[in-house]
Amino acid sequence: MMIITPDNIVEYILKNTDLFSSEPLLVEDISDYNPEEELEGFVNYIYRVYNQERSVIVKQARPYLKCFGESYALTPLRNLLEHETLRLRGEIIPQFTPKTFYIDKENNIFIMEDLSYLKVMRFQLNKMLYFPKFAKQMGEYLAKSNFYTSELYLEPETHRLLQASFINVNMRSIMENVAFIRGAFGDIDYNTPNKKLLNVSELVWSKDEIILECHKMRDIFMKRGECLIHGDLHTSNIFINSDQIKIIDMEYTFMGPYSFDMGYLLANFISQFSAFTFKSNIDQEKRESYCLYLLSTIKEIYTNYVYYFNQCWEKDVKDTYRHVKGYKESILDNFLSEVIGFTACANLNRLISLTGYPDYDVIEDETDKSNAQGLSIAIDQFILLNRNKIKTIDELIQTIVEIRKKFMENRS
Amino acid sequence: MMIITPDNIVEYILKNTDLFSSEPLLVEDISDYNPEEELEGFVNYIYRVYNQERSVIVKQARPYLKCFGESYALTPLRNLLEHETLRLRGEIIPQFTPKTFYIDKENNIFIMEDLSYLKVMRFQLNKMLYFPKFAKQMGEYLAKSNFYTSELYLEPETHRLLQASFINVNMRSIMENVAFIRGAFGDIDYNTPNKKLLNVSELVWSKDEIILECHKMRDIFMKRGECLIHGDLHTSNIFINSDQIKIIDMEYTFMGPYSFDMGYLLANFISQFSAFTFKSNIDQEKRESYCLYLLSTIKEIYTNYVYYFNQCWEKDVKDTYRHVKGYKESILDNFLSEVIGFTACANLNRLISLTGYPDYDVIEDETDKSNAQGLSIAIDQFILLNRNKIKTIDELIQTIVEIRKKFMENRS
Repeated sequence: MMIITPDNIVEYILKNTDLFSSEPLLVEDISDYNPEEELEGFVNYIYRVYNQERSVIVKQARPYLKCFGESYALTPLRNLLEHETLRLRGEIIPQFTPKTFYIDKENNIFIMEDLSYLKVMRFQLNKMLYFPKFAKQMGEYLAKSNFYTSELYLEPETHRLLQASFINVNMRSIMENVAFIRGAFGDIDYNTPNKKLLNVSELVWSKDEIILECHKMRDIFMKRGECLIHGDLHTSNIFINSDQIKIIDMEYTFMGPYSFDMGYLLANFISQFSAFTFKSNIDQEKRESYCLYLLSTIKEIYTNYVYYFNQCWEKDVKDTYRHVKGYKESILDNFLSEVIGFTACANLNRLISLTGYPDYDVIEDETDKSNAQGLSIAIDQFILLNRNKIKTIDELIQTIVEIRKKFMENRS
Repeated sequence: MMIITPDNIVEYILKNTDLFSSEPLLVEDISDYNPEEELEGFVNYIYRVYNQERSVIVKQARPYLKCFGESYALTPLRNLLEHETLRLRGEIIPQFTPKTFYIDKENNIFIMEDLSYLKVMRFQLNKMLYFPKFAKQMGEYLAKSNFYTSELYLEPETHRLLQASFINVNMRSIMENVAFIRGAFGDIDYNTPNKKLLNVSELVWSKDEIILECHKMRDIFMKRGECLIHGDLHTSNIFINSDQIKIIDMEYTFMGPYSFDMGYLLANFISQFSAFTFKSNIDQEKRESYCLYLLSTIKEIYTNYVYYFNQCWEKDVKDTYRHVKGYKESILDNFLSEVIGFTACANLNRLISLTGYPDYDVIEDETDKSNAQGLSIAIDQFILLNRNKIKTIDELIQTIVEIRKKFMENRS
């Protein structure tokens, strides 16, 4: 396999594509994780190649997780999968999907549009920015992406071929552990200065009912093949400005449950809600407004999902299902309870594993930070154990508000 | 593709295998459905080839359902799948799996042991024969077959590769319609002489809650990939004598829910129970004893499944799951409720589709027959709608007995 480097990449592009008609081309290595530059990336080598005419991103998968070195093996085929799923989603929801220009299967390289006219959403949320169009865009993205890759729309035979094509044997192993099992991805850091989080973390993972419910959600994640999911949809994989969003990093894609992507994404809104509740360096009124914005975003993502899902159903559901009374409703009932479960698992396990979590790590005051983490853990545990009792999105929001109220009272 | 015929089969076997060392070989075409010969088969051409030394079965898949002619297309690859799943099960439960000798991928032919020293179970049940060892054997077969092809035992990566290898795009389409949707496999025969069944059939399929629950079970069947299931485990696919069983016809195999095979099989025991309740040509005491035997077989298949499943768990479950308190119990709770759902769907849809059903078709008296069908439909509907309330196998048996009691009272 040829390895692309800053030295050979220009020659490679000119030889294999017609993307650029004039030289010189400039090259920038953007694969390193660097919070200041607002980029996250653990598994690929990524370059920006550009001139005055255009700018593209070149992504090469290496057969291991970059940040863990060569001992952590991963299939480089994931780049082919990502390219294919981007092509597929480009047909369904082109407005939210980066354009792809070129795939080199032999060397696991693909070239896509440069999204640097947009920003990574996580860091914009950290900065307390508002994106009024986001919830509607995300609801539409999730609903259409789910519906049109599901067997509600596709013939069962096509659906099964998609499942086999995107079986994605290895990449799934990461998420199915990280999001559901404490300390699955590296040892717990018992020397952490954050003793409060460590103690809470030990306490949480001593509760049989928490461990059991995490494993039940993990089971749904691993075994239920309903639609092609993104599989790693957090706010760092959303590029955004006030008008539009683009979703990146689809290499975890496989045939999974309808509810996972939304659940995993909402975890980041619970975490921002918890963080802003305690960012004491920000004016109280401003951060409270932002907390309300975050909660309304959770609600609006869900209601827009339901709106667009209904729209897809009306327009395109197969006759097999259209006339089954109560079937759509049973899918949506199930959806909310699972979304809640996945949200809880994702937040909880990231926090109690004591790995980095930028939503909290930007909080400078240690007490604020540990309060924010504690609030999220309280919310996550409660909604995980009560997910089947929460029947509407308003009940979920109400529940979160009440838990925060109690948490504040107990603290004072 | 070469087509095997009685004329070329001997030459084919002698050329390609070392199975026989002496001639002449005799050939028998056993692919036709013939109730008197106690054989059922719709999708393959099957020959017995034998001499004084040994006897083997040669099975060739054709790319359509034999009984429907060339217009009903099916992948002939199913023979390769069947051969592979037989090899796999031969490793797990050799005592219940026919030996395979030869696979010809190019011509979709495979050769397996001749099971004619055993009988097809369905017709032995029709004759009111007892098989005291059967429930234990079947419980063991199902538990081990499920457990050792599940991710409770296999590494997730291996499990996913199995899922992709046995995706079985086409064959699954048959069962996922036949067992869950009325009239999915051929039009309803509105000219049937059995007007009573036709009327009940129309009534049942006018109930929204029945249609909805059938579709919910169908969803589980289609979307949940837990273990490699047989996919068509009825009593005609079980060869039996007083000492042993062999399970045949695995071409429907795919990664499905734990509960399907047992559910689908128990449907045949509910049907025999309903049939024997009304076989008025048989001595009342004898058939009542047989009904009790059928019910106790249902119970014992289940309790043996749980026994062997627990045994497999103790011996071989992965550490990931061994220490999760309540996880095994939650799998088994779910299992019973789904078994009940699949049993109900399979019986109900076969009956209300007015297709042939040998368990009832052997009843000569039309009133007896229609009573038997009516009883099964009553049981099927009730347990389908109440499957989540039935918490133990004893409750299920009790429920069946009570429904029969009420059914008899209403009739008299």
